[in-house]
Amino acid sequence: MSNVLIVHAHPEAQSLTGSLKNLAVETLTAQGHQVQVSDLYAMHWKAVADAADFPQRKNADRLRYASESGNAFATGTQPADVVAEQQKLLWADAVILTFPLWWFSAPAILKGWVERVYAHGFAYGVGLHGGERWGDRYGEGTLAGRRAMVVVSIGGREPHYSERGVNGRLDEILWPIQHGQLFYPGMDVMPPFPIYQSDRLSEERWVEVAAAFKVRMENLFTDTPIPYRTQNGGHYDGQQVLKPGLGSGETGLRIHLAQQGDPVENLHSAESQPAALARV
Amino acid sequence: MSNVLIVHAHPEAQSLTGSLKNLAVETLTAQGHQVQVSDLYAMHWKAVADAADFPQRKNADRLRYASESGNAFATGTQPADVVAEQQKLLWADAVILTFPLWWFSAPAILKGWVERVYAHGFAYGVGLHGGERWGDRYGEGTLAGRRAMVVVSIGGREPHYSERGVNGRLDEILWPIQHGQLFYPGMDVMPPFPIYQSDRLSEERWVEVAAAFKVRMENLFTDTPIPYRTQNGGHYDGQQVLKPGLGSGETGLRIHLAQQGDPVENLHSAESQPAALARV
Repeated sequence: MSNVLIVHAHPEAQSLTGSLKNLAVETLTAQGHQVQVSDLYAMHWKAVADAADFPQRKNADRLRYASESGNAFATGTQPADVVAEQQKLLWADAVILTFPLWWFSAPAILKGWVERVYAHGFAYGVGLHGGERWGDRYGEGTLAGRRAMVVVSIGGREPHYSERGVNGRLDEILWPIQHGQLFYPGMDVMPPFPIYQSDRLSEERWVEVAAAFKVRMENLFTDTPIPYRTQNGGHYDGQQVLKPGLGSGETGLRIHLAQQGDPVENLHSAESQPAALARV
Repeated sequence: MSNVLIVHAHPEAQSLTGSLKNLAVETLTAQGHQVQVSDLYAMHWKAVADAADFPQRKNADRLRYASESGNAFATGTQPADVVAEQQKLLWADAVILTFPLWWFSAPAILKGWVERVYAHGFAYGVGLHGGERWGDRYGEGTLAGRRAMVVVSIGGREPHYSERGVNGRLDEILWPIQHGQLFYPGMDVMPPFPIYQSDRLSEERWVEVAAAFKVRMENLFTDTPIPYRTQNGGHYDGQQVLKPGLGSGETGLRIHLAQQGDPVENLHSAESQPAALARV
């Protein structure tokens, strides 16, 4: 049995997003997992990253957020709300984000959770930096070994988010979150669970959506993650540019998905060696 | 002479981002433009979109943010801070966003500005919806005729954000902001001004960066916008999917850029008819 953290960002408990969060708790608990929920609106989460996060400043004259964040993390002077979320992340075997897509990204309160909880030394600035090595990120890092998943309600229609839809492909819209915020500190990212036309969900569609979501929750630890290429797995050169010949046949950001026939990964961390091929 | 609104999101006045904001004000003012700055951190902008935004609720039992937003906009019961920003947007001929790239998107406080200021009926839900018509958006809408530009400081190195860089291409990382938040309500979006390795900027590099930025400010009203395809200009079918044959030779989200030889646009709004070709 495993531990699951749900980070939930919706201002209305009765919303579809709220119902999915509740269904996730029910389903995962019924399977014997431990579940914690960070309900950001209910917690009145401080959304804005600012000087108030660092009562003991390294440099009182000029705020460099990353620098103060690293100092506070290293010296144990972080705000209590930040420490609590970091503890939950370390406790979790899987992290689920549940939120509505607002203006093609996450609600500000959830973005502010990332900004404040992802301290320097915790979620970035981890591992060896120097020469052609750019630290442990993208598949490695503090949160490696964990799974992550985005559950997102969307007002618009599915074709608008399709391969050639006017809004852009959903996988590319979610790139900053899935690749930049979940894969970056080390988590394996599961395919997202989007619900389109979420404002007009009929009872019939809810039954279907709930059934499909339940299956995704039941398979959270067995489904195959999105095969993002690890940074240090041999795919990128010393400038962090994808090596020639890789990503052929793909377009846009999908060149960063590992493919059959790619070089076998050789990460320094023992547990994740043949990831590229295993994931495809 | 024109009106320019700068929406600035950085917690430190002495930051590089702050210096660029100041340089924008100086340069534009020297040219005779009127400039207003919304300094979100200094204003203690309310970043979180929640029930407190609607003291007079249409539905007191369940918060549907879009619905209450539309009601408040229509009935003149929006919060004063939201109205003030909407007035600035209507006043402006150009809107510049200045911010650091945090976790591959804008700081939460700026995202929260979009969420609260972009009311239903103001920035979305505008124009005729029905049949194959999905309203006035993407090149049309309340903010049509205005220019917008992203000025973004980035801690990482340029190759990491290049065509095949590990972080993803900068134009695709900025897609939710540039296409989804600026072009959506009607603004023409100028190419962004990114500053890489912004944490380690030497005096020499600052001189170069400042000179290049000054030129961009001086040419704000004459440079060529990113040629995003307009929604209602004949590029997309009734399901809002890009028509066959368009976007050839491009990859990923760049299929949504107009190309030489595309059909001439025929928008219902008179001022913007031959946009696709004119923009290329």
